[in-house]
Amino acid sequence: MKTTVLKTAFLVGFIVLLSGSFQKAEACDWCNNQFFVELHTTRSGTLVSDELLRAVKAQGDFETYAATSRLRERVEGMQTENAALAAAPVTPPLAAPAASQTRGAAQASGIFPSDHPFIDIINRDNSLETPATSYIPQDADVVPDARITITLQEGEVYLGNGVMYSGFTVDGSIPGPTHVVQEGDIVEFTVVNNGQIPHGASIHAAYTQTSKYLGQIPAGQSRTMLFQVNTPGVFLYHCAPGGHAIPMHIIYGQYGMMIVEPKQKFRLEEELGRGPDIVLNISQHEYYANGKDAVTGQGNPMYTAFNGKLFRYVEEPIMAQPGDYVRVNFLNIGPNLVSTFHLVGIIWDYAYWQGHPANIFQGGQSVLAGPSDSWTIEFRVPPDEGAYTMLSHAVGSTDRGAIGLLIAKESAERTQVDGRGPVHTTEELAEFRERSRRTISPFAPGTEDVDVPVRFDENTDEVIVRIIGNSYYPKIIDIKPGTTVTFINEDVFTYLSGEFSGLHNAVAIGGPERFVSPLLTHAESWSFTFTEVGEYTYMCTPHPYMRGIIRVSEIEGDGFFASAGFGIAGMLIALLSILIAFMALRRKPAQA
Amino acid sequence: MKTTVLKTAFLVGFIVLLSGSFQKAEACDWCNNQFFVELHTTRSGTLVSDELLRAVKAQGDFETYAATSRLRERVEGMQTENAALAAAPVTPPLAAPAASQTRGAAQASGIFPSDHPFIDIINRDNSLETPATSYIPQDADVVPDARITITLQEGEVYLGNGVMYSGFTVDGSIPGPTHVVQEGDIVEFTVVNNGQIPHGASIHAAYTQTSKYLGQIPAGQSRTMLFQVNTPGVFLYHCAPGGHAIPMHIIYGQYGMMIVEPKQKFRLEEELGRGPDIVLNISQHEYYANGKDAVTGQGNPMYTAFNGKLFRYVEEPIMAQPGDYVRVNFLNIGPNLVSTFHLVGIIWDYAYWQGHPANIFQGGQSVLAGPSDSWTIEFRVPPDEGAYTMLSHAVGSTDRGAIGLLIAKESAERTQVDGRGPVHTTEELAEFRERSRRTISPFAPGTEDVDVPVRFDENTDEVIVRIIGNSYYPKIIDIKPGTTVTFINEDVFTYLSGEFSGLHNAVAIGGPERFVSPLLTHAESWSFTFTEVGEYTYMCTPHPYMRGIIRVSEIEGDGFFASAGFGIAGMLIALLSILIAFMALRRKPAQA
Amino acid sequence: MKTTVLKTAFLVGFIVLLSGSFQKAEACDWCNNQFFVELHTTRSGTLVSDELLRAVKAQGDFETYAATSRLRERVEGMQTENAALAAAPVTPPLAAPAASQTRGAAQASGIFPSDHPFIDIINRDNSLETPATSYIPQDADVVPDARITITLQEGEVYLGNGVMYSGFTVDGSIPGPTHVVQEGDIVEFTVVNNGQIPHGASIHAAYTQTSKYLGQIPAGQSRTMLFQVNTPGVFLYHCAPGGHAIPMHIIYGQYGMMIVEPKQKFRLEEELGRGPDIVLNISQHEYYANGKDAVTGQGNPMYTAFNGKLFRYVEEPIMAQPGDYVRVNFLNIGPNLVSTFHLVGIIWDYAYWQGHPANIFQGGQSVLAGPSDSWTIEFRVPPDEGAYTMLSHAVGSTDRGAIGLLIAKESAERTQVDGRGPVHTTEELAEFRERSRRTISPFAPGTEDVDVPVRFDENTDEVIVRIIGNSYYPKIIDIKPGTTVTFINEDVFTYLSGEFSGLHNAVAIGGPERFVSPLLTHAESWSFTFTEVGEYTYMCTPHPYMRGIIRVSEIEGDGFFASAGFGIAGMLIALLSILIAFMALRRKPAQA
Repeated sequence: MKTTVLKTAFLVGFIVLLSGSFQKAEACDWCNNQFFVELHTTRSGTLVSDELLRAVKAQGDFETYAATSRLRERVEGMQTENAALAAAPVTPPLAAPAASQTRGAAQASGIFPSDHPFIDIINRDNSLETPATSYIPQDADVVPDARITITLQEGEVYLGNGVMYSGFTVDGSIPGPTHVVQEGDIVEFTVVNNGQIPHGASIHAAYTQTSKYLGQIPAGQSRTMLFQVNTPGVFLYHCAPGGHAIPMHIIYGQYGMMIVEPKQKFRLEEELGRGPDIVLNISQHEYYANGKDAVTGQGNPMYTAFNGKLFRYVEEPIMAQPGDYVRVNFLNIGPNLVSTFHLVGIIWDYAYWQGHPANIFQGGQSVLAGPSDSWTIEFRVPPDEGAYTMLSHAVGSTDRGAIGLLIAKESAERTQVDGRGPVHTTEELAEFRERSRRTISPFAPGTEDVDVPVRFDENTDEVIVRIIGNSYYPKIIDIKPGTTVTFINEDVFTYLSGEFSGLHNAVAIGGPERFVSPLLTHAESWSFTFTEVGEYTYMCTPHPYMRGIIRVSEIEGDGFFASAGFGIAGMLIALLSILIAFMALRRKPAQA
Repeated sequence: MKTTVLKTAFLVGFIVLLSGSFQKAEACDWCNNQFFVELHTTRSGTLVSDELLRAVKAQGDFETYAATSRLRERVEGMQTENAALAAAPVTPPLAAPAASQTRGAAQASGIFPSDHPFIDIINRDNSLETPATSYIPQDADVVPDARITITLQEGEVYLGNGVMYSGFTVDGSIPGPTHVVQEGDIVEFTVVNNGQIPHGASIHAAYTQTSKYLGQIPAGQSRTMLFQVNTPGVFLYHCAPGGHAIPMHIIYGQYGMMIVEPKQKFRLEEELGRGPDIVLNISQHEYYANGKDAVTGQGNPMYTAFNGKLFRYVEEPIMAQPGDYVRVNFLNIGPNLVSTFHLVGIIWDYAYWQGHPANIFQGGQSVLAGPSDSWTIEFRVPPDEGAYTMLSHAVGSTDRGAIGLLIAKESAERTQVDGRGPVHTTEELAEFRERSRRTISPFAPGTEDVDVPVRFDENTDEVIVRIIGNSYYPKIIDIKPGTTVTFINEDVFTYLSGEFSGLHNAVAIGGPERFVSPLLTHAESWSFTFTEVGEYTYMCTPHPYMRGIIRVSEIEGDGFFASAGFGIAGMLIALLSILIAFMALRRKPAQA
Repeated sequence: MKTTVLKTAFLVGFIVLLSGSFQKAEACDWCNNQFFVELHTTRSGTLVSDELLRAVKAQGDFETYAATSRLRERVEGMQTENAALAAAPVTPPLAAPAASQTRGAAQASGIFPSDHPFIDIINRDNSLETPATSYIPQDADVVPDARITITLQEGEVYLGNGVMYSGFTVDGSIPGPTHVVQEGDIVEFTVVNNGQIPHGASIHAAYTQTSKYLGQIPAGQSRTMLFQVNTPGVFLYHCAPGGHAIPMHIIYGQYGMMIVEPKQKFRLEEELGRGPDIVLNISQHEYYANGKDAVTGQGNPMYTAFNGKLFRYVEEPIMAQPGDYVRVNFLNIGPNLVSTFHLVGIIWDYAYWQGHPANIFQGGQSVLAGPSDSWTIEFRVPPDEGAYTMLSHAVGSTDRGAIGLLIAKESAERTQVDGRGPVHTTEELAEFRERSRRTISPFAPGTEDVDVPVRFDENTDEVIVRIIGNSYYPKIIDIKPGTTVTFINEDVFTYLSGEFSGLHNAVAIGGPERFVSPLLTHAESWSFTFTEVGEYTYMCTPHPYMRGIIRVSEIEGDGFFASAGFGIAGMLIALLSILIAFMALRRKPAQA
C-alpha cells in the first residue's frame, strides 16, 4: 500500500530530531500529534483512519492523550508541555508507615466520606461476605501500613553464562523486588519513572482502578496511589504505560512479585503449628532476542529464568535441612509460556491456586501456571539428604535457563529466597559487559551471533523488513545498491499515541542518505531504494530504542569472480574467448 | 517416495473436474473412491495401505463412508448418490418451543419408552446423584424448551484494521451466535449446511452421542437432533464433519459459545440477592494465515481476537457503572493457544471452572484456559470511574488483537456483550473488501504482503512444497523452467475419505501445462518438472478450497546481466573479450 | 569468540576415539575431565569459567562427578574406573513381593530405626494429618508390596503411518509400561541401564530423595531403591540422568505412567457401588525431528500421540458398551505442549486434578494439562451406540497424531487400555524399518524429506551450524570448498559433565579431513574451513549419538553453466565473443 505522507512536516521533524538528543524526546509527542493531523487530513476517509478515530473517540473522556478536540492546542503547546513535565517534582517522601497493630484500619475508621459519590456501593461492599475491593479515596487521611516505591527505567542486566541483556528494569533488576504485605493493609504505592520514555504500573494485588493514577507516567516524573489489599494471594506487578506498551514493557523485563499474606493460616502451617522454615519466592520469566519472537505463537524466548539469572540456583543452590517446612510462592510471569513447576522428588502437601488459602489442592506433582498465574505450595523436605532439581516440566523451555537446585543437608545454613533478580553495581555491570561474550535485546541489534546479518544475494532487488513487537526484523540486513526495502508494520495495536501504541516508522539516524518513513498503522508499508553504499542505522521515532541497520555494499562474498556470481564455467569460457581473441589478434596475417 | 498411479483414471477425473464446476463437487467423492480402489490394487501390500485399510475397517460399522465392502457399488453408484443428496429436503420448521414453565420435562414425562434397548442404563442414570447424560430418543414426542439453528458455510469476514479474512463461518460470523439455555432444557438443535463441502457439529453442552446425528452433513442438507442439557456450564460448539476436518473447520472459524445456565445460583448472585448488571460473553480465538502455522507447535496465529474483531472493545469499549455486578462467561476457543484472562485493576470475587457453580475459586488475578476451557467469573466494578483493560496475560499473543476496554462511568449506558462476531451485510462486506489493505486465508493465497512469493534462484532445480494443515506451503513460488517441484503431504490423519481426511493431491486448474498428482497419504510425495513459462494455479480435489500458485519465468531479478547471475566480473571479462575479438576482427592485415 | 584449545590433547583423544568404538565410550569421561582441566588452566579467569567452577563447587558434596578436588585422580584413574563399572553386577533378583494383606506395613512395623538421624522428623511426619513422605531407609528389612523394574536404552520404535523414530526407550517402548500400585505400598523400584550412555530415573510418585539413588546410572549397570507411595494420583516417571540430560532424555522418549490407586473411592465408584467397566490409561506425548524444535518456544513437535503410535486408537478403536462406567487416567507427558483432553459427546461426571480423589471437579468439557500434569476422569457412556472422538482440543497439535476413537456398541468386547506404547519384536522392527517411508530422530539425520540438506550458494563463504537441544542445526549442509563453518553452542545448561551437560563439540568421524572442536560452553563458537571436497560426518563426543553431515562439492545445481551462476546472459555474451574471436581467427587476411 502506498501512503501519502506530509513529507515536509516529517523532514522538519527529522531535522529537529537529529539536532537534539532523540533519547530525551519522550516518545515523540510531535509524531503522535502529527499522526492525528494526518488522520484528519491526508488519510481522512480511509477505512482504517475512520476506525482509529472512532477508537480514540470512544476512549476520549478517560485517555486524555487521545483527546482529539484538544489536538490543535496540543500541537502548538507541545514545547511548553514538555518543559512543564521536565520541571515537575518527584513525589516527596512521606511519614513512616503505621505500626502493625493499626494495620488495615480503612473499613473501621470511616475514611470513606459520607458524601462520596459511590458511598452506597462502598457500604454495600463492606457488608458482603466476599471482601471489599481495594478502593480508598486518594485524599483519605490515613497513615498507610506499607509504603512501596518502585523505580522504572531502561537498562541492562547480566544474565549469567556470559550473556548481557539490554531491556527495561525495575529498581535496576529483572525481576524487581518482591513486596510482601498483609491482608487488610493500606498500601501507598509510588512509581518513579527514572527513564527516558513513559512508564507506569499495573498492580495485580490492587482490586481497584489503577490505570488513571499510575497508568502513564512521563519520563522523570512519579505518581503515588493508595489502596487496601483485601484479597490474599501471590500477585504480579508490572509496568503498564497503556495500550500496546503494556505487553511491550512486560516483555522487556519490568515486573515483580507482590505477596498479600492471608489472615487465615495455610493448612500445613496449621498442622505443624508454626510457620515455614524457608520461604522461596520464585518467579519464572523469559528473555527475548527480538520482538517478533515475543509476539508470535505462544512465544519463543531466547532464555528462561527463575529470578533473573540463567540457572541461578544451580550456581548457588538453595540450602535446606531434612524435614524443613518449605513454602514456595510461585509466579509465572511469562510473558508467554506456560509452566508446570515441579521439584524432582517432591509431591506437594498442599497447593493453593493463586496463593489464596481457600483454593486448596492436595498431592500433585506439578502446578500449571500460565502468564500471571500463581500458586502457593507447601511441602516438607523428606528425612534424607540430597539434591532436588527445581524446573518447569515443560522441559524444552526450562532447559533454556529455568532450572535450580534445592539441596537438603543436615548442617545446612538455610536459604531464604527473595524473588528479585541479581543486583549489580554500575561497575560490576561494566565489567560483565566488557567480559561478556553475547548481548541480546528485544528491540536493538545484539551481538552478531544472535542477530545474524541477513545477506541478500545479487539477484535480490526487493527486501521486506517487518516491524513487529517493537522490533525491526531482520534487525541487520546486507543488500546491494539499488535494492528497495519495504517496511511493513505488523504490530496491530495502533490506536493510541506514542509509546503507548504500535504505530511505527523508520527514520535514518546515520548513513550516507537520509530517509524518513511516515508513521505506519497496521499492515501499512513504505519503501525506500538504497542507492548509496554505506551503513545505515535507523530508529522508530515513537519508540526511540528500536534500532535497525542496513548495510549497502557493492560486492558480496569473498572473491571477485565468485562473489559476483560469475562462477567457474563463466570464467573458463571467458578466458577461452580471450585466448582465442588474442590468438586472432596476434596471428600473423598470412603472406605478409 | 515414488507412487505408482492410475494415471488414466486420474486424467479422466481431471477432465471431468475442469469441464464442470469443481466448487460444486462435494469434496470429490470420486477421488475418495478412487483412492480406496488404489489401496486394494496398486498400493496393496504396502505398509501404509495395510494400516489404512485396517483403520477404515475398524470403524466400518459406524462410519458408513468407509464401508469398504460397499466400495464397488459406491464407485458405480456415485452419480446416483450425488443426485439424491442434492434433492434431499432441508429439515422442515417445527412448532414453537414450549413455554418456560414446562422446561426439562424429559425425566418426569416418561419419554423413554420402556422397551428402549438401554432402558436399564437410563433408569440407573436417572437415580444417580450426578445428573443424567443428555440422551433423549430422537423420536421422542416432546416439545423442546429451546430450538437452535446454526448455518454453516464457507465465507469471509472483516477483522478490522483493514484486514479481510477468508475462511468458514457460522451464520456468516466468526464466532457464531451465543446460545443460552437453562439446565434441564430439552434442546432441538438444527445444523444447516449452506456451503459447498461437508460440514457438521460437535456440541459440547450435549453429553451424548452427536457424531452419528450431526457429524457429517453433505452440502445443501441439514440435520436435527434432540438432547437435554443437564450439566450447567459455558460450552463450545463447533463444526465437526469428522476426522481431520474437525481440527480444520475449527481452525477456519466455525465455532461459538453455548451457555447452560445453572439452577443453583452463583455465589455472588446469592450474596447480592440479585442477578448481574452486565453479562459479558467473551470468546478468545485465533486467525491463521496458513495451515502450517495452525498445526505446528502450540500454534502461530496471525491474529487473536475477543469476539471476532481485532481490538473490538477498544474501538467500542464496554460500558459499566461503578459498583456494577459483572459476570463474564469466558471461553477460550483457541484452537491452539493458552489464555490467562485478566482485567487490569480487577481481582475475581469468584471464578467457576468450566462455568459450573460447584467448581468455585476465590480471589485470583487471572484464569488459565486452554482451547475449549471456560470459566464463569464474577466481580464488582470498584467505586471509582476509570478504564479497565481486558486481555490475556500471555501478552505476546494478546497484542495480536485480543485486547479490550471496560470503562466505568457513573452515567454509563451499560453494555451487554453477546459473544457473536460482528455481523455485516453482503454490501458492507463488499465495501470492506474493496477498501481493505490485506487479506489472509488459512488455505488460499492472501495478499502478497502476507503470502510473500518465495523466489528460488537460478541455481535451484528442486523445490519442495509441503502440504500441511490443508494448505500448500509456500503458497506461491517463483521458479525457473526445468525446476522439479516435489509435493510432500505432511498431514497425518489420512484414514478417512474426502473432506474428512488429510488425504491431498495437487491438480492444475490453470496454466500452460496440466498436472495431476495422485492422492497422497502422510509423508508421500510426488514430483513434477515445470518446463513451460507461465503462471500455474492448482488445487486439492478432496479439499477444493486449497489453492497454490507456481510461477515459472525465464529471468529473475531486475536486470539482464545481474538477474542471470552473470555479475560484474563476468560482464567485464566478457566485454573485454568482445573488445579484443573485435580488435582482432577489424585489424587491418599488415601490408595489405 | 575464539577459544584457545589444548589441541594436542584433543587430537590424542580423537585418535583414541576413532581407533576404538566411540559407541562404547560412555559419554566421553575423558572429555569431561579434559574440560575441567581447561577450566583450571587455559580458560582460567574468564567470566564463564568462574561461574562454571563456582556452580560445580556448590554441588560438590552431592554430585560426585563434579568433585573437582578429585580431578587429577579421576583423569589418571579413568581407565581403571571404567573397567570397574563394566564389571559391576546388575542388582540380583529378590524374593517375591508380599501378599496384599500386608501392604504398606512401613509405618506400623517400626522399620525406621530409633537411631535414624532424622527420627524426629519421621515421627513428626507420621503424626500429621497430611500423609508421610515416601522415605524408607534403603536398608530396611521389609518385603516390598510391589517390585517394578524398568530397562532404559537407546533404540527405535515404529510410529505408524510409515514413520520410524530413532530415540530412547523404556523396556523398548515409548511410553514405557504403566505401573499400578496401591496407596501405602512399599515399592522396590529397579532401573536397569541397558544402553551405551548414562541413564537414570525420576519417579514422580515417590515423595522422597531419588536423585542420589537413581539419578545417574552408568551404561550396563542398574540401581534399586525402596520407597512408600503415600499420595494417590496419576504420576509420570521418566529418565533423569541429571542436569541437561533430564530434559533431553524426556524429549527422546524415556517416560511412562505410574498410578497410585487411592484408598478413598472416587465419587462415581461410590455412587454406582462398583468399579469402572473400562479403565483407559492415556498418555499424550510428542516426537521431535530435531533438538531445536524441542527447546524453542512452547515446543514444535513433528508428531503427537496417545500411547506411542500416531492415531493408534483410530486404527484400533477402544470398544465399550452403552452405559459403561469409564475411568480415564490422563497424563500429559509433553514434554512441551499443553493439552486440553476432550471426548466429543462426553461431559465429565467428575474430574480429579492430578488423580487425587480430594481434588474433585464436576462437569466440564475438557481438562487442561501441562507437561507432567494429570487427571483422573470419570464418565458414563450414554445409552446410545456411536463413536466418540478422543483428542486434545488444542486441535493443531492433536491433528499431528493424538486422536483416537471410543466406539460404543451393545455387543462390544470391552477394551482396557494400558498406557504402554506398542511392543514389537526385533524382527517386526526390522520389517517396519525396511518398509517405512520416513525416519525421524531428534539427534541424528533422518530421511532427507525431513532433514532436508541446506544448500548454500556459491556466494556463501561463512555458514553457522547451531548446536541446540543436543542436535546440530541444520543437520545436513551442502557447501563449496573454502567455506568456513562456525559451530555455536546454543545449549545453556553446561555446568555439569558429560552426558549430564549441554557441553558440546564437533568431531569428524568420516570424510577427507579431520577436525576436532574444543568443548564449547554456552554461546561459545569454533570455526573450521572446509577445503577438500567430500562428505564429512561428525559427532559430539560427550553425546555420541549426536550426528551431523557436511557435504563439500565444487559445483552446485544441475548444469555446468547454470550451476556455477554463469547464467544465460553470460553464456550468450561468451558464445558471442567466441564466435567473433573465431571469425577474427579464421578471417582470411585481405589480399592473400
